[in-house]
Amino acid sequence: MRPQVLIIGCGFGGLEAARALSGSGAADIDVTVVDKTNHHLFQPLLYQVATAGLSAPSIAAPIRHLFRRQRNVTTLMGEVVAIDARARTATLKDGGLLRWDHLIVAAGATHSYFGRDDWAAFAPGLKTLDDAFEIRRRVLLAFEAAEREDDPARRAALLQFVVVGGGPTGVELAGTFAEIARHTLPGEFRRIDPRQARVTLVEGSPRVLQAMPESLSERAREQLAALGVEVRVGARVTGLDAQGLDFVTDSGAERLDSRCIVWAAGVAASPLGRVLAEATGCTLDRAGRVVVEADLSVPGHPDIQVIGDLAAARSHVPGREPRPVPGVSPGAKQMGRCAAANLKRRRRGEPTQPFRYRDYGNLATIGRNSAVVDLGTPAGPVRFSGYPAWLFWLFAHVYFLIGFRNRFMVLLDWAWAYWTYDRSARVVTQRGQPGA
Amino acid sequence: MRPQVLIIGCGFGGLEAARALSGSGAADIDVTVVDKTNHHLFQPLLYQVATAGLSAPSIAAPIRHLFRRQRNVTTLMGEVVAIDARARTATLKDGGLLRWDHLIVAAGATHSYFGRDDWAAFAPGLKTLDDAFEIRRRVLLAFEAAEREDDPARRAALLQFVVVGGGPTGVELAGTFAEIARHTLPGEFRRIDPRQARVTLVEGSPRVLQAMPESLSERAREQLAALGVEVRVGARVTGLDAQGLDFVTDSGAERLDSRCIVWAAGVAASPLGRVLAEATGCTLDRAGRVVVEADLSVPGHPDIQVIGDLAAARSHVPGREPRPVPGVSPGAKQMGRCAAANLKRRRRGEPTQPFRYRDYGNLATIGRNSAVVDLGTPAGPVRFSGYPAWLFWLFAHVYFLIGFRNRFMVLLDWAWAYWTYDRSARVVTQRGQPGA
Repeated sequence: MRPQVLIIGCGFGGLEAARALSGSGAADIDVTVVDKTNHHLFQPLLYQVATAGLSAPSIAAPIRHLFRRQRNVTTLMGEVVAIDARARTATLKDGGLLRWDHLIVAAGATHSYFGRDDWAAFAPGLKTLDDAFEIRRRVLLAFEAAEREDDPARRAALLQFVVVGGGPTGVELAGTFAEIARHTLPGEFRRIDPRQARVTLVEGSPRVLQAMPESLSERAREQLAALGVEVRVGARVTGLDAQGLDFVTDSGAERLDSRCIVWAAGVAASPLGRVLAEATGCTLDRAGRVVVEADLSVPGHPDIQVIGDLAAARSHVPGREPRPVPGVSPGAKQMGRCAAANLKRRRRGEPTQPFRYRDYGNLATIGRNSAVVDLGTPAGPVRFSGYPAWLFWLFAHVYFLIGFRNRFMVLLDWAWAYWTYDRSARVVTQRGQPGA
Repeated sequence: MRPQVLIIGCGFGGLEAARALSGSGAADIDVTVVDKTNHHLFQPLLYQVATAGLSAPSIAAPIRHLFRRQRNVTTLMGEVVAIDARARTATLKDGGLLRWDHLIVAAGATHSYFGRDDWAAFAPGLKTLDDAFEIRRRVLLAFEAAEREDDPARRAALLQFVVVGGGPTGVELAGTFAEIARHTLPGEFRRIDPRQARVTLVEGSPRVLQAMPESLSERAREQLAALGVEVRVGARVTGLDAQGLDFVTDSGAERLDSRCIVWAAGVAASPLGRVLAEATGCTLDRAGRVVVEADLSVPGHPDIQVIGDLAAARSHVPGREPRPVPGVSPGAKQMGRCAAANLKRRRRGEPTQPFRYRDYGNLATIGRNSAVVDLGTPAGPVRFSGYPAWLFWLFAHVYFLIGFRNRFMVLLDWAWAYWTYDRSARVVTQRGQPGA
């Protein structure tokens, strides 16, 4: 019997693990990749779909197409809802049963509303293509409704956009909303001036882009302000409803009337973490992530590994304290490769190796011509911002896009958008009427 | 007071009318275009979105973007639900009121299930982007579900695709389904062979493409067969449910088990026809279309014109019997220009002119390298099929696509698809699980 490897989830971690499980040392393994959707999503550019700059197919590749030449990989579309660690099976939502000899769980993360799940209806997050379509719909329909609104207060609320959370996604969304209002839409409306739209970024901590050095956070804040984004740091959201949001700062409580609020504040591990905890007795951290061994396996279950955003993993560098791995795509990819390598080692009877995260740096874009970059090089950190950072960001993202065609089309779309200020994917389907 | 022209619907007819109402003889007119969606849709290529060949933004342009330089045109997104011909107002679904001095109704058509609206759930039609996404989802998820299905009968039903209706849309869909099964998907599945999929085209009349000369219908049937489509003519559908469809032919009753049925059989005028009939007492024909005067106005209401698929219009050529205008995009565009011209004539106190339809021919594509073309030229009809017809079809459609960028992107997408057999838009979002 050929050993059966089951990989749950085909984000960056799962994709990389499955890719590493072919060719040398793995040709006699059967790999099954199961995912809730039919596509691998290039999440770093998802905000561009949400802001009508890219169409969905530009950043989503059918999973089975990516594995078409890897004959030992079978792709299935389905949602795993239960795991039996002793019988070595996974149960799908519609009742199907998958057997495995080795399990790699790469189910990723979802939004967290910090216990206020009722807020989700008023402020969608951005993790899936459906999320992106919903945000695109709300943003474009807010302008449409404003064009038809005669009451000044209601019109102002329709033209008030709020992004909660000042991490990379929040910064990208807020910057792009401001760009749409200032550059894309003016001239197309007759009753309103889209430039009157207000974009507010609300962040609980004292600065945006917390993962960056303080100097780059400051650059990002300046660039956001130059694009016309109001940045409110140290602002804790206390209430959210269909009409707006409440928050408190040191200077007291405030209210913003808004019909379009986007949530980019909190991340929680996939519910599959809890499923795995029930099956194996493993520990979850406060964010619901599975606490794994140094080699990414579940304690007491060397045949189960957890990678990517679902893993509370640490990076092991000889002679240093283990450090937590940030929830970024290079981390997930590296874990995917490490999990595949350790699986092969176990099959050869060799000891597994601890995971070591290589940090190549950190970058975030803010809008047209603006970004911040923080690179770790052997010669020390290299930091820059503005136009050169934006160019660097652009080519890095296009380079890592999956599949030649997507890269090419995304570059074309951006070249077009850059010269014309146009955004090509401004399509809202009938399901979303203004106000609905 | 500048006269107010209201155009309801921005398909080919409405768009053309609004474009003609600017510049010479119309600069002092205010035009308002109201549409249920925010985009003009290039419907002749909608089947490509449904079959994952094109992304939605490639064939949909934001209406207000198209009119951005026409300063006398205001675009509103909204659905007209009532018309008052005496007070000269139109009421929107959410209560808004629009005043007009002249009304052009271009609300188009929708599917007709010949009184069996309960069939709609089992066999979606193709008129809007949402329809196209629904069909794309059903087709792709049928293959996904087949890959997970062990029972041979259920697997066969999942791999049986049925298109009801052998007009241009039905022929295009059936041909493209066969192409996907034969060329795009093989190699990507491990448990099924997508080439085993059956595509059946069910047509009630004795031949496909009834608007074409009989010789070209025969060519189309041959080309469909070569692509692997089973063509059943003279087949009347008698039943439709979630498991398949029943139909009768001269040889008796038959049943096809299928999980993916598409409806391309009937067209009915927009419900706005009935609204207009209540407001003006005008007559509707059997398809629900408004019977208009020779100059496209509503009898007794020279200030209201109906154009496009909603109009039961006739073409007036001096010295000949008036003939009905076919429901094709050139007809709608020509009516749009005629309505605008007559509106200008009325304002100058000149008599209006009857509508004359210029028939430049008829074309339909069947699949890769196959199409049929029937052109009317001063030297008589020119008919051809196969590869040259396909090239002709391709360039004609790209030429008429709205906006330079779309043309360019569509050509690129097609060039890519042609060389690789890949289809770039094979994305299904989570909303659509297999079986859901």
